[in-house]
Amino acid sequence: MIHSINDSPLFPIANPRSIAFFGASNKMTTMGTIQMMSMKELDYQGRVYPIHRTEKEVLGYKAYQSVADLPEVPDLAIIVLPTGIVSQTMDECGRKGIKQAIVISGGFKEVGPEGAVLEEELKKTAAAYGIRFIGPNCIGVANPHLKLNPTPLPYEGDPGYIGMVSQSGSFVTQMFGYLHPMGLGFSAAFSVGNEASIDMVDCMEYFALCEKTKVIAMYIEGIRRGAAFIEMARSIVPKKPIVALYIGGTETGRKAGFSHTGAMAGPDDLYEGIFRQSGVIRAASITELFDFCWTLGNLPAPKGRNVVIETHSGGPGANAADAMGRAGLALPDLSTATQEKLRPFFPPTASISNPVDMTFSRNGQDLFSVIPETILTDEKAHNLMMYILPQGRMMMRQLSAMGLSGDEAAKEIVKMIDQQAESVIGLLKTSGKPIVCYTYGNRNDPLQQKLIAGGVPVFSSPERAAAAINALITYYENRLK
Amino acid sequence: MIHSINDSPLFPIANPRSIAFFGASNKMTTMGTIQMMSMKELDYQGRVYPIHRTEKEVLGYKAYQSVADLPEVPDLAIIVLPTGIVSQTMDECGRKGIKQAIVISGGFKEVGPEGAVLEEELKKTAAAYGIRFIGPNCIGVANPHLKLNPTPLPYEGDPGYIGMVSQSGSFVTQMFGYLHPMGLGFSAAFSVGNEASIDMVDCMEYFALCEKTKVIAMYIEGIRRGAAFIEMARSIVPKKPIVALYIGGTETGRKAGFSHTGAMAGPDDLYEGIFRQSGVIRAASITELFDFCWTLGNLPAPKGRNVVIETHSGGPGANAADAMGRAGLALPDLSTATQEKLRPFFPPTASISNPVDMTFSRNGQDLFSVIPETILTDEKAHNLMMYILPQGRMMMRQLSAMGLSGDEAAKEIVKMIDQQAESVIGLLKTSGKPIVCYTYGNRNDPLQQKLIAGGVPVFSSPERAAAAINALITYYENRLK
Repeated sequence: MIHSINDSPLFPIANPRSIAFFGASNKMTTMGTIQMMSMKELDYQGRVYPIHRTEKEVLGYKAYQSVADLPEVPDLAIIVLPTGIVSQTMDECGRKGIKQAIVISGGFKEVGPEGAVLEEELKKTAAAYGIRFIGPNCIGVANPHLKLNPTPLPYEGDPGYIGMVSQSGSFVTQMFGYLHPMGLGFSAAFSVGNEASIDMVDCMEYFALCEKTKVIAMYIEGIRRGAAFIEMARSIVPKKPIVALYIGGTETGRKAGFSHTGAMAGPDDLYEGIFRQSGVIRAASITELFDFCWTLGNLPAPKGRNVVIETHSGGPGANAADAMGRAGLALPDLSTATQEKLRPFFPPTASISNPVDMTFSRNGQDLFSVIPETILTDEKAHNLMMYILPQGRMMMRQLSAMGLSGDEAAKEIVKMIDQQAESVIGLLKTSGKPIVCYTYGNRNDPLQQKLIAGGVPVFSSPERAAAAINALITYYENRLK
Repeated sequence: MIHSINDSPLFPIANPRSIAFFGASNKMTTMGTIQMMSMKELDYQGRVYPIHRTEKEVLGYKAYQSVADLPEVPDLAIIVLPTGIVSQTMDECGRKGIKQAIVISGGFKEVGPEGAVLEEELKKTAAAYGIRFIGPNCIGVANPHLKLNPTPLPYEGDPGYIGMVSQSGSFVTQMFGYLHPMGLGFSAAFSVGNEASIDMVDCMEYFALCEKTKVIAMYIEGIRRGAAFIEMARSIVPKKPIVALYIGGTETGRKAGFSHTGAMAGPDDLYEGIFRQSGVIRAASITELFDFCWTLGNLPAPKGRNVVIETHSGGPGANAADAMGRAGLALPDLSTATQEKLRPFFPPTASISNPVDMTFSRNGQDLFSVIPETILTDEKAHNLMMYILPQGRMMMRQLSAMGLSGDEAAKEIVKMIDQQAESVIGLLKTSGKPIVCYTYGNRNDPLQQKLIAGGVPVFSSPERAAAAINALITYYENRLK
């Protein structure tokens, strides 16, 4: 175990001051070019040296015929070349003195015995120069905090706190647009590919020491160093949560994973045991993987398994109660004192047990202010889950019918929604208790967007919310063991 | 069992030519007014008679002091009044000769013994005049085909094919905006509330005979007539699928459901048995309920449990393979002949087993045309699942780099996306095999929107897609038994 992040071979890979780039040209459809375009688009501030036999300039960067010609020894080489010339290129990098590389190129171990021979050759070449590298057969790295994104898809959104370790490049580069609307982003992300030199355990070590990383997310097709994984995870979990999706546990997943990165998967039970032993929270899908990061990264430690559901609609409340029960969470009644305090804000037919169901008929703003505030003062309310409904169209109709012009009504609605969101965001900060929302409304809803921007997770179903709250609770329970 | 839909008491309720409306006024914040506003907004073409003691006009409709004064006997009375005057109003309706009603008002059985007494009184009053009614404690009906929506939320989207039977009003009125972006809508929807007169089984009977209904969706907190439910479901399932969400199976769900509509829930096993015996497909969430309607309503009968996954990214392919395996679906390899036919369209490192993984490097349009077309000719390919990625931003960047202006590039992208969508939509029609897509992209993506508009379900995760394909397969398997 290293003591400083600077000692990790991944530090210069994720934080390079200069990059030699092999395989980009001015032909806009090749992989290498597409990746360099992403890097340029995000405006990486380090020095970029395209290596190209004939071009004088690549995407506006001065190009060099050979890595030997570079004016300095770059921190990192990125190689996106045909399989057959990768080892030779690695050798040239070694001779220049480069110590870190990313091999994007595929055609190695994942394609069969012939590729495995090439991979061995590549490893030997790198080892001869003491080069540590990510890949082959990967997408490499993204570090939005450094504006570094040499992956195919354009980066979207702000830098975030998720440290991603992935045996799939897609779950790095194709997730930018998925995470952004959730207000999430990567602290950094590594696509490890065939793990010929640097593997997932090395990445975990890096993120353990990375100050920008609040949660480690892992997409796993097969762990190569089981004992090291457990040891590393155990040392991290008391400080930072790790969430993992393992897809090699089914016959169909195992087979697809092997042809993808050549990873050897094991039975589902075995992995379940590894995760359990090491305190890793297991996700059942990509959806859960990032949902769990959301609650674990945004919310405070809960005091227990109790959840209070606040709703203004019976069905969504009952549905959520059922989902919470299935997820193993408890729904205690509020104390009599709390119920007394809430009574004045409720119509006579409303239920003040749990779900706390306001029904449709009183002041809607109470649902975002005095009611959740009062609920959160109850000792039995460890977590709060709020049902929200996009009401813009309905409000607009009502305000128009009351005689407001379209503009006046729109302004009024923005004001109301701002108040609602700010109130909940404030409660999240002041109460010290986890708050999540769920809705069947879509992501374009301004209330949802404002809550998310303010750090309140909003899930598209009570089942997703229940699983994510359960992950949060389970993590803190494990820490106490 | 009735033989004509006209014999159902729900026919005049869902297709009224005229409505007496109690409880709407010109005060914009009351429930009744809000409901009448929705009706007005959707432009219901029947005759609307607000009954109001003092107003001369309500929301632009001529108002009447008493139902006795109406110039005709309306097909339907909608009652949104304080609990205490509901029975008396029902009596007035009876004296006028009205035979159908919806009682929106709550405060009956769901609030306890006192309310139960009021509910008995209401039933007796209605029975004395031979009135059948929905409710109390419900939202009533929506029939978008008739532009009839006396529910609180504005109707969104087109009329559809889902016949909704719900013990929650929210899962009628609050679902309009949820279903619309999926290209789905209701044929009609009934919120049954406390089921004092008309119950879920009556609604099933109506939808069995409704030509606009392709799938029946049910939200259930507790079935009151178990034997009748099973008999009715059994008679319907050979012709139309029924999908049901039951939420009373957990202690938390049972308790919440009871305080919501006073329904007596039973153990989960019992309901599992009821659904299994009657061929009803069980959904585990609202998400699944409508996902299953999507595949069952849009897609042809599959020939078996085999699914072929098409992807251009290894991780999403392996992840989907795992999800399919967990859902009990099979992923056979394609025949050698099919693989030979596909080979020319694939780069050498690509996998042509299953998942069929094109990787990133060739002509992207092939993924929507010749490749799926060839896959679908394989006898072993019973179902096709395609991974899609929103590529607009990346395409825009590339075309701009190639020298196209912003406008030219945008035009080119629209053309490419149109071709992609049309090709897949065409294959769905010509192949006679189910096709679904999955993506981590968001609903604003134009490719996704076009596919959905053309009838291709696009799911936000492979897990959702797997569950929905499994529901489709299971329904047709059950029919063969």
